[in-house]
Amino acid sequence: MVNGDIPVKKIFESDRFFAILDQNPVTEGHSLLIPKAHYEKQTDMPAEDRKELGIALGALAEKLKEVFGDNMNISNTSGEFASQSVPHFHIHLIPRHEGDRLWDGDKSRIVLDRSSGFERLKPSKEEIEQLANKLTGDKQ
Amino acid sequence: MVNGDIPVKKIFESDRFFAILDQNPVTEGHSLLIPKAHYEKQTDMPAEDRKELGIALGALAEKLKEVFGDNMNISNTSGEFASQSVPHFHIHLIPRHEGDRLWDGDKSRIVLDRSSGFERLKPSKEEIEQLANKLTGDKQ
Repeated sequence: MVNGDIPVKKIFESDRFFAILDQNPVTEGHSLLIPKAHYEKQTDMPAEDRKELGIALGALAEKLKEVFGDNMNISNTSGEFASQSVPHFHIHLIPRHEGDRLWDGDKSRIVLDRSSGFERLKPSKEEIEQLANKLTGDKQ
Repeated sequence: MVNGDIPVKKIFESDRFFAILDQNPVTEGHSLLIPKAHYEKQTDMPAEDRKELGIALGALAEKLKEVFGDNMNISNTSGEFASQSVPHFHIHLIPRHEGDRLWDGDKSRIVLDRSSGFERLKPSKEEIEQLANKLTGDKQ
């Protein structure tokens, strides 16, 4: 898979799904679980993918837990009125920590909207690749 | 299942999951998919539930689609730092429409936080029961 001209490393792969780090993360480790087959919305998901979804989601979450702990937000937006921007089904997994940049005083918040003023992390491609290597156990 | 003294109607049930309408919805049809087994976080989900999760989620989403269309937000918060408030795993399915109460100008937003000032819908118990009957096809 490519993002512009730069290959994006898979941090997880199963028969029908794969995962990459979000290139525009809201927290470190923000990942996307993506089906290999193309469909847009959650209700478009074929039976074969439904059967594997929970297994894939669990495996990816465990991988993230090893590095970031087990606090996370999981989110999917299906349909333009739910603020879906990329018309290919994907699930966000967003690791969370006390006092992280989504933390606001004594409350945690998850805000995902199309034109939010919320600042993304903006890691460099190298930083993203390093984290992908950490998650996959690759040395390089 | 009871909410205080008032029984809450199941709108979906499978071997390992069931769903109810959120009693404090952010949009009409806001539903919760809940495992019958007890565990807190997504990473605590046993293999048997992972195998059924996508099937159950798809079936519930189809039921909601019949009444509310196929635009929806799907969200889970796992862990207190992700703003999990009820320590039993559950997934929110939130039907969305253009111009709904989560709509803000030209942007859609999904905001789920522990102490948000966002006003909930506050339907009556009777309104919730009527909608549950609509979703289950029950006449009474």
